[in-house]
Amino acid sequence: QIEATDINFNPMAILRDFDTGKIIKENGQTIRVFEVTANSSTLQLNSAISFVSWNLNGRVPGPTLRAKAGERVRILFHNEDGSSHSMHFHGTHTAEMDGVKPVRHGKTEIYDFDAEPYGVHPYHCHIAPVTRHISKGLYGLFIVDPPEGRPPADEMVMVMGGFDINNDEKNELYAFNGIPNYYRDHPIRIYQNQLVRLYLLNMIEFDPALTFHIHANMFQVYRTGRTLTPNEESDVITMGTAERHILEFSYPYPGRYMFHPHQDAIAEMGCMGYFDVIPT
Amino acid sequence: QIEATDINFNPMAILRDFDTGKIIKENGQTIRVFEVTANSSTLQLNSAISFVSWNLNGRVPGPTLRAKAGERVRILFHNEDGSSHSMHFHGTHTAEMDGVKPVRHGKTEIYDFDAEPYGVHPYHCHIAPVTRHISKGLYGLFIVDPPEGRPPADEMVMVMGGFDINNDEKNELYAFNGIPNYYRDHPIRIYQNQLVRLYLLNMIEFDPALTFHIHANMFQVYRTGRTLTPNEESDVITMGTAERHILEFSYPYPGRYMFHPHQDAIAEMGCMGYFDVIPT
Amino acid sequence: QIEATDINFNPMAILRDFDTGKIIKENGQTIRVFEVTANSSTLQLNSAISFVSWNLNGRVPGPTLRAKAGERVRILFHNEDGSSHSMHFHGTHTAEMDGVKPVRHGKTEIYDFDAEPYGVHPYHCHIAPVTRHISKGLYGLFIVDPPEGRPPADEMVMVMGGFDINNDEKNELYAFNGIPNYYRDHPIRIYQNQLVRLYLLNMIEFDPALTFHIHANMFQVYRTGRTLTPNEESDVITMGTAERHILEFSYPYPGRYMFHPHQDAIAEMGCMGYFDVIPT
Ligand SMILES: [Cu+2]
Ligand SMILES: [Cu+2]
Ligand SMILES: [Cu+2]
Ligand SMILES: [Cu+2]
Ligand SMILES: [Cu+2]
Ligand SMILES: [Cu+2]
Ligand code: NA
Ligand code: NA
Ligand code: NA
Ligand code: NA
Ligand code: NA
Ligand code: NA
Ligand SMILES: [Zn+2]
Ligand SMILES: [Zn+2]
Ligand SMILES: [Zn+2]
Ligand SMILES: [Zn+2]
Ligand SMILES: [Zn+2]
Ligand SMILES: [Zn+2]
Ligand SMILES: [Zn+2]
Ligand SMILES: [Zn+2]
Ligand SMILES: [Zn+2]
Repeated sequence: QIEATDINFNPMAILRDFDTGKIIKENGQTIRVFEVTANSSTLQLNSAISFVSWNLNGRVPGPTLRAKAGERVRILFHNEDGSSHSMHFHGTHTAEMDGVKPVRHGKTEIYDFDAEPYGVHPYHCHIAPVTRHISKGLYGLFIVDPPEGRPPADEMVMVMGGFDINNDEKNELYAFNGIPNYYRDHPIRIYQNQLVRLYLLNMIEFDPALTFHIHANMFQVYRTGRTLTPNEESDVITMGTAERHILEFSYPYPGRYMFHPHQDAIAEMGCMGYFDVIPT
Repeated sequence: QIEATDINFNPMAILRDFDTGKIIKENGQTIRVFEVTANSSTLQLNSAISFVSWNLNGRVPGPTLRAKAGERVRILFHNEDGSSHSMHFHGTHTAEMDGVKPVRHGKTEIYDFDAEPYGVHPYHCHIAPVTRHISKGLYGLFIVDPPEGRPPADEMVMVMGGFDINNDEKNELYAFNGIPNYYRDHPIRIYQNQLVRLYLLNMIEFDPALTFHIHANMFQVYRTGRTLTPNEESDVITMGTAERHILEFSYPYPGRYMFHPHQDAIAEMGCMGYFDVIPT
Repeated sequence: QIEATDINFNPMAILRDFDTGKIIKENGQTIRVFEVTANSSTLQLNSAISFVSWNLNGRVPGPTLRAKAGERVRILFHNEDGSSHSMHFHGTHTAEMDGVKPVRHGKTEIYDFDAEPYGVHPYHCHIAPVTRHISKGLYGLFIVDPPEGRPPADEMVMVMGGFDINNDEKNELYAFNGIPNYYRDHPIRIYQNQLVRLYLLNMIEFDPALTFHIHANMFQVYRTGRTLTPNEESDVITMGTAERHILEFSYPYPGRYMFHPHQDAIAEMGCMGYFDVIPT
């Protein structure tokens, strides 16, 4: 069992950690500024396996950046890692800001664009081989809130990632938010009848598609976060690499409930967790 | 060609067999009670291959349990198999009724919950390794009808399953309703212009996603059975493990039509059948 | 870098080439007639690899056939290839016109049916092993326009295909419209703020599902082309074999933008291209 003290970051803190940057004024324009630094560090994935990750702000996934639709955002991307990297954002922006050009060790790149459209957008390194740069840990979420916001909820982020330990282009371990089985060993506390809003991203390379399942409940799906009313309801959803959705649900009964991909082999390789639903 | 006399159950009977249990009264409450027994038996999958299945009520898939939304249901689960098993239901219920605890040989477990919400819910054994307990045959469908019911139709159930004959975590054979190629060798008779309502479940482990295709026609999709109006129309749909939908269609012309996953390799390994559309 | 002069067909021409056949009158009925010929030819997939394709009208994918909903269509299918083949259409038709019977070398088969319903329908050879007949190149799109048409747009067709060079039931190369990396080496010119309507088909065997992603923009999805209003919006979509959709988008800023499956390994094996957005 891995404790947060053994690793560089705490998956429980990552779960509900939203980085809203800092507001500056420049030539009369308001800009929301984020600082992101790439580097390498060793993750203790379980008692036997350590893994040299490439990461952003010392964590896998990287920071959950968050802005409101229409705001000007600026990402100051510092590369302190030995390899060249980049930050490619999903969403709408110019070709210049697309983040496909390598940023070398020691350099800073500035990405400037309007946060558009509202929704849930992944970002990731786009340097070839992209499979390797992603599966080493260089990815995260950029949430763009609709102008009117969304209803109050217990908001949380989960990014499904895979680890190719032996470089055979298959994953040997999987995780929600960077550390295999963390939420199995440290269940996520939520409250009975409280609306949970889960921002969920599949960032797993090498597997063609992932499923995600919650036990004993159904969820509403807001595909790509691009709607204010749900598209569908289920308790299992299939997501290709880079697909992401908002899932909403509330647990009517207290107790402990599993969540995991319904590819049970993947669940049993680390992509498994629990909700502890506290009575209210 | 496998005949029903060679096997323990008849896929043609399974197709339209709905188990509505028995109604009892207990302390003034009406309860719909189902009896399900786990056991092992050998399936003759084709002329060369027999397979020791773990099954429910002597069949793969297990019985199609059916109730109306809001009814209290009770499942009396008897485990007569040598290994421990469980019945985990999808849908809404308490943590106590989630079916993740092992039920040992000779024991009975009682699962009690409200049939909620309306829709199509898989059930399956949830004992680790889940991939093995599922792929050995311990799964089926629980249909919860909406209070107002659905329009009249020729209703049928198909569960896509895979068989890992040699325990290499890949499937060598596939089937609709337990026996490879059964509906290829014994086409399903339906009537011209008759609405067909197909309750379809993908319960295949080891393959990341399945497709399902019907020839010469389109179907309406009611995702997870959670709607009364269709979400979309196509003739191919992609389904991850444990995804299930209601598909509705009627054939305007008589004749013989194939259905199969559009991964043609999987079709050619047993997951193929025909509709014989009878003129009216 | 492969030039159109090295190959039998020009992927840039294929992109916007719609075959509307010829109108004839027969016994007072109007019929739209298409001519399609199967044959073999060698494709130069890159500087090192040539591949003996089975193809239709000398191209992979075959011709994009196009009609209006409700029109009578007739396909004169000539098989000049040494192996037996067929043309199986998706969409609605009689069992006789389903295209599952082999057409031998030197023979012509006539497929006659009403173009129904409006939408985007694949066609492909349906002779076993279907995986092989498809992956050798015998597939294409049949577009059925809604009676009222669709709004004006820059319309284009992309078919994602895979090539199993060494017959191991895995693909070593992938392509949009037949030639790996063609649109990477010859970007597709589109205009700023011009609506693009992309008819997209996944016809890749052996991979369970593909994703498709465009950079720096979102697309509207018309699933199976069966709607006149979009079902959802994203920039990544997951598609099983034979799934096809209409995607609509317009680029607000000029410049060069990638598109590719977000399974980056597949992108790096040839399924990658660029849009060059010309300022207006
Ligand atoms: Cu469950
Ligand atoms: Cu991406
Ligand atoms: Cu078909
Ligand atoms: Cu399940
Ligand atoms: Cu992108
Ligand atoms: Cu097809
Ligand atoms: Na905005
Ligand atoms: Na590996
Ligand atoms: Na109810
Ligand atoms: Na196997
Ligand atoms: Na019509
Ligand atoms: Na191959
Ligand atoms: Zn990188
Ligand atoms: Zn489950
Ligand atoms: Zn589970
Ligand atoms: Zn079991
Ligand atoms: Zn087909
Ligand atoms: Zn077929
Ligand atoms: Zn063929
Ligand atoms: Zn991307
Ligand atoms: Zn890209």
